[in-house]
Amino acid sequence: MRYSNIIHQLMVPAPTLSYPIYIGKRLQDIYKDFFNKYPRVGLVTNDTLFNLYKIPILDLRADVPQVFYVIVNDGEKYKNIHVLTQIYKQFTSKKMDRDGLIAAFGGGVIGDLAGFASATYMRGVDYVQIPTTLLAMVDSSVGGKTAINLAEGKNMVGAFHQPQAVFSDLDFLDTLPVREFNAGIMEAMKYGLIMSRSFYDYICKNKENIKKRSKDTVAYIIHQSCRFKSEIVAQDEKEKGMRAILNFGHTIGHALESYTDYQFYLHGEAVALGTLAMVSYGVDRGLLDRKFLHEFFDILTFFQLPPSIPADFKIDRILAHLSYDKKKRRGKNEWVTLKQIGVSEWGQSIDYKQIEKVLGRLQKNG
Amino acid sequence: MRYSNIIHQLMVPAPTLSYPIYIGKRLQDIYKDFFNKYPRVGLVTNDTLFNLYKIPILDLRADVPQVFYVIVNDGEKYKNIHVLTQIYKQFTSKKMDRDGLIAAFGGGVIGDLAGFASATYMRGVDYVQIPTTLLAMVDSSVGGKTAINLAEGKNMVGAFHQPQAVFSDLDFLDTLPVREFNAGIMEAMKYGLIMSRSFYDYICKNKENIKKRSKDTVAYIIHQSCRFKSEIVAQDEKEKGMRAILNFGHTIGHALESYTDYQFYLHGEAVALGTLAMVSYGVDRGLLDRKFLHEFFDILTFFQLPPSIPADFKIDRILAHLSYDKKKRRGKNEWVTLKQIGVSEWGQSIDYKQIEKVLGRLQKNG
Repeated sequence: MRYSNIIHQLMVPAPTLSYPIYIGKRLQDIYKDFFNKYPRVGLVTNDTLFNLYKIPILDLRADVPQVFYVIVNDGEKYKNIHVLTQIYKQFTSKKMDRDGLIAAFGGGVIGDLAGFASATYMRGVDYVQIPTTLLAMVDSSVGGKTAINLAEGKNMVGAFHQPQAVFSDLDFLDTLPVREFNAGIMEAMKYGLIMSRSFYDYICKNKENIKKRSKDTVAYIIHQSCRFKSEIVAQDEKEKGMRAILNFGHTIGHALESYTDYQFYLHGEAVALGTLAMVSYGVDRGLLDRKFLHEFFDILTFFQLPPSIPADFKIDRILAHLSYDKKKRRGKNEWVTLKQIGVSEWGQSIDYKQIEKVLGRLQKNG
Repeated sequence: MRYSNIIHQLMVPAPTLSYPIYIGKRLQDIYKDFFNKYPRVGLVTNDTLFNLYKIPILDLRADVPQVFYVIVNDGEKYKNIHVLTQIYKQFTSKKMDRDGLIAAFGGGVIGDLAGFASATYMRGVDYVQIPTTLLAMVDSSVGGKTAINLAEGKNMVGAFHQPQAVFSDLDFLDTLPVREFNAGIMEAMKYGLIMSRSFYDYICKNKENIKKRSKDTVAYIIHQSCRFKSEIVAQDEKEKGMRAILNFGHTIGHALESYTDYQFYLHGEAVALGTLAMVSYGVDRGLLDRKFLHEFFDILTFFQLPPSIPADFKIDRILAHLSYDKKKRRGKNEWVTLKQIGVSEWGQSIDYKQIEKVLGRLQKNG
């Protein structure tokens, strides 16, 4: 019985490879067909997802007899060179060759890790993304960024390697914890803030439906987010220039994640605070009005995203973490700012005193 | 005092990046100027080369104050993920960021290792090749192949990442051991066999000058070899098709290297035997004449390259190593054969019985 249901479909016209994104329900038939173009398929996932979905979703051997499974421990801390080496070992022992396909089945961690393994095993083999979190569907599964962490920092080693296809199956969102869902919504709002006021307004107007996880509304949000991201990737695949705007809210977000040792915030929550800081900075510059700042504060609160920094955080230490940012160029942070809602610019320098002021205000919000 | 002397210069028009190759003497001024375009330069080399050249060649700090040195152990067995991790650690501790430059100073091992570190550190930073062996000058420093070894096989993990420039300084050849020099000549002869009868004939006619390492003759051979390789890389950067012809003689060569645990042959020596086998196979097919086989045998002998397989080698075990070849596609070895001297083709399958016969004959040569 074939019953896959594609709600939206789009192409990412990346310079090195154009590929489709499928957004829908019960997409197994679609990706099984895709798998069957390859003589060998290695599906990489984590133990939590494997146990959750092994019956029936990952029970592929009847239809895809050439599949094998590579199962890693669940968690960001396993996105390291040691686990990567284990993945390579599995590939060789399962006789994966250059004609094989790797499927990354999971959230951003699995996508990054399996994607980087694909980018480098035998100098690059094909892979697909099957994202299982909203954050991965709206952001990390698209655009070809892959990475692992070093002890010295997150995503310090990686490659640009576009997937052959992305299969975003909304059914996985049914079981997604609410904090993770909301963290994904934050990245969708980001596209609105930097590229499209109307998309931002759509999210605000439909917030109740989004909270209820209405399939059609969420599918639309994923589709639009992918469309915005693919426009950027088409123009600047390897982040030599304008792709930098996707880091809006991320400079301070990364500093907060790093300051809290990645134990306190989900990525999207840290980005929420980073975004709020940049909106607040926009008000200081006279480019955004205070009313919008209050509205944005309210939407964060609605989605249970943090609108303030805890009172015991040391602002000077957060600023120190800013100065280790991997995205520095010529020793300077790459700031992305809003000229207005839906219009961003990048490449300005901002004095740390300004940031200190904004962060101090975010602390008082609490 | 500026006294660099460029004898030849050419561009490699790779699709992802066009870059220059400089061939000459005392090229330090040229690459120092290049280094000074970057705010940070990490020079990767091995302990042997560092001790040999630290005065005056690698004594760069007066002219390039932003340089730092990353020194790894000398040897193919150190081209592994453990040493790679140490290199990453040095980069982070020396605050190498995305605007930095990595210089690979050494032979093929250093080029592969430092190249792969450059391809993956922060998702890719610029690098240059400063090859110190003839093999690296005619082959491995050009074309952007980078790799490390796994316990499970050579070059099993890697990336295509073109250098910003290649600086081939003939002065390094003065101290190159004779076996290594001759192994480099084998790769140059390969270009002749697969692409240009006249270049092959040039090498044969000038063999005495080559053996004496006449600078002009050797410079010409490097220049022509790079020209042939860059033509191929321009058409097929990532080895989807015709770049495969560069593997002429390498299928059996790799099997011999792997059979002997990489302890017995230099790479070029194993390729010499692999090439002789394919020439012999060409005679079997009636495409090459026996006289040429004898001439080729003689030129191998002249350059002290092995014209026979030791009597105690087990042919059936060598064939087993053929079947583990990384370059297999859809389970089959990718053979490259000669239609005539200077004209190659790829993609045919060859029965292992044929190969067994040819290898048996190579054993009798001894």
